Amino acid sequence: MENIKKHNFGAGPCILPQSVLEEAASAVVNWNNIDLSILEVSHRSPEFESVISRTGLLVRELLKVPEDYTVLFMQGGASTQFSMIPQSFLKTKGLYLDTGYFAQKAIKEALFFGDTEIIASSADKNYNYIPDIQSHHTNADYLHITSNNTIEGTEIFNWPDMGVPLICDMSSDIFSREIRIRDFDLIYAGAQKNMGPAGMTMVIVKNKLLDSIDKPLPSMSDYRVYRDNQSLYNTPPVFSIYVSMLNLLWLKNNGGVSGIEKQNIKKAKLLYAEIDRNTLFRGNAAIAHRSRMNVTFQAVEPTHEQEFLDFAAKRGMIGIKGYRTVGGFRASLYNALSLQSVQALVKTMQEFEILRQPKPVGAESEIVY
Amino acid sequence: MENIKKHNFGAGPCILPQSVLEEAASAVVNWNNIDLSILEVSHRSPEFESVISRTGLLVRELLKVPEDYTVLFMQGGASTQFSMIPQSFLKTKGLYLDTGYFAQKAIKEALFFGDTEIIASSADKNYNYIPDIQSHHTNADYLHITSNNTIEGTEIFNWPDMGVPLICDMSSDIFSREIRIRDFDLIYAGAQKNMGPAGMTMVIVKNKLLDSIDKPLPSMSDYRVYRDNQSLYNTPPVFSIYVSMLNLLWLKNNGGVSGIEKQNIKKAKLLYAEIDRNTLFRGNAAIAHRSRMNVTFQAVEPTHEQEFLDFAAKRGMIGIKGYRTVGGFRASLYNALSLQSVQALVKTMQEFEILRQPKPVGAESEIVY
Repeated sequence: MENIKKHNFGAGPCILPQSVLEEAASAVVNWNNIDLSILEVSHRSPEFESVISRTGLLVRELLKVPEDYTVLFMQGGASTQFSMIPQSFLKTKGLYLDTGYFAQKAIKEALFFGDTEIIASSADKNYNYIPDIQSHHTNADYLHITSNNTIEGTEIFNWPDMGVPLICDMSSDIFSREIRIRDFDLIYAGAQKNMGPAGMTMVIVKNKLLDSIDKPLPSMSDYRVYRDNQSLYNTPPVFSIYVSMLNLLWLKNNGGVSGIEKQNIKKAKLLYAEIDRNTLFRGNAAIAHRSRMNVTFQAVEPTHEQEFLDFAAKRGMIGIKGYRTVGGFRASLYNALSLQSVQALVKTMQEFEILRQPKPVGAESEIVY
Repeated sequence: MENIKKHNFGAGPCILPQSVLEEAASAVVNWNNIDLSILEVSHRSPEFESVISRTGLLVRELLKVPEDYTVLFMQGGASTQFSMIPQSFLKTKGLYLDTGYFAQKAIKEALFFGDTEIIASSADKNYNYIPDIQSHHTNADYLHITSNNTIEGTEIFNWPDMGVPLICDMSSDIFSREIRIRDFDLIYAGAQKNMGPAGMTMVIVKNKLLDSIDKPLPSMSDYRVYRDNQSLYNTPPVFSIYVSMLNLLWLKNNGGVSGIEKQNIKKAKLLYAEIDRNTLFRGNAAIAHRSRMNVTFQAVEPTHEQEFLDFAAKRGMIGIKGYRTVGGFRASLYNALSLQSVQALVKTMQEFEILRQPKPVGAESEIVY
């Protein structure tokens, strides 16, 4: 068991495995005993080239990426992808599934580049569910979806097939569960959840989609430039890539994606069960669409909200305040968050319930502290 | 004196002060004793907000940035700026000074956005000098220059005044010498030389220039979005900003920009003097335009090139191989490189000279080893 400093339920930049942090810290002073810091190494050195290629191979192995897909490491965050995707692929129309805050951000950027259509939205219920996709559109360049909605706490479990290339923002659930890459034409993910430190975005793209780009583009907005230069056209975010490599090695040594998925299911079930059981709390998301990564819930009694935040903070729990537009609570259960941390949160919720709803004398002893 | 591991003359990502690396490493495990890694901290936390605002204040203090200029921290490297500048400011024509590899990259990207004019070029002499700017153009939106040419080893010491906004790529000499911010309308710099780890770009821009943007732009290509959100519109490169803060504090405590400039002049003079004295080497750049940051030189006798690289490597010197298109040697003397490292390189050059040009018996003892 890894040493728990605090129970970090933050939504991102978020918890990373302790062993990864320790190795990264050591590399900041002296990397691999080459008497240089990882921060001082040229991105053109053989040492760093082996880091970036090994990171790519780990991605391919862990996600079973087929040969005809390319893995790219880019700067700029998922927000940059919101623009690059329509800039690269939108010719007649881009379809978008509107499942919340980040889906809307993607839609907003697409409007600069062409015609978009929102094929379904869950805005009517404050984005607490994933809408059904009923109609079929074929006269479009792609469908863009957000697999996990970090703020709203919903997650897509059935991938739509609209007969157009499927593009997915997987920033907050990549590497958390098994996926079939062939279901997608382009996946992108900001590193700062299950991959590594903020400052890097990974793209997995089908070569056929890349080859459909038929116009010149500014270099840093051109996926082909990243592909043709093995993500080394310009100086890449060296440290973010290095720590991602360490983190993917940790994942590989801890059961891989299928192993971590089992753990993530276990953690999410435990917390949702407590939310459903505990009389003081209720979940936000429709049960069938509950995210395993970001568990959103609220206090039945609004006055309990700040009280519970304080109560939990005293027990070493941080990052459970809900996003400002949603309120309530959000506990993010990313890969590196241990089952022990979820157990500690559940126990805290139980203790809080006892505190607020005193049982008859003698009944307290039923709860194990 | 800081402990020297290797003499790192690499052009970038490059040497950082040892004390900065040690503090950064400590923060990767447990930052400021808050029981969290700097990599795990939310960019919306008060702790990180104080880092980014303190970094901004240090930039303002060290460079004496006037009130009507804004300091921005962005992702994407200087290469992204090559596009963002014409995308934002090019309406009728952009003027460019062609002083080498990176200047040309900037010109290439501008062509996507409009009309450009190269007002002067030193391509005729393999970019070994800074061309005079003689003509006056007023019907243009800006003049773009590259203050230090990392690959060619030249540096601009007299800023042109063309009566149009002056935009400067200062990636490889920012914080190395005193500048008057008022001479410029926009300065940008990738962090990975004198500021911090790769993954961040700083922009200092005159508000008047920002206000001249009169069209909607994709969010991540819009300087106004960064300004209006204090560089926190999306997840910033947290670690790069944090280490930059540490490095700027180091600079402040080590004489500031004027103090480091004196050191940099001393280091550059010492090395150029040896290049000029030593019969086996010759400098690349025109003397008046020699860069203090990147000293380029070559072996008079081509067969000596690889021999000297091996000779220097055995003495702990790395990163002195010249860029592949230029050949020869390049010793980068960034802020964190100590005078001792330059002295060690000079001594190595002297030893190499003795080895290749044996003196009469008895004369060797003149050289102190």
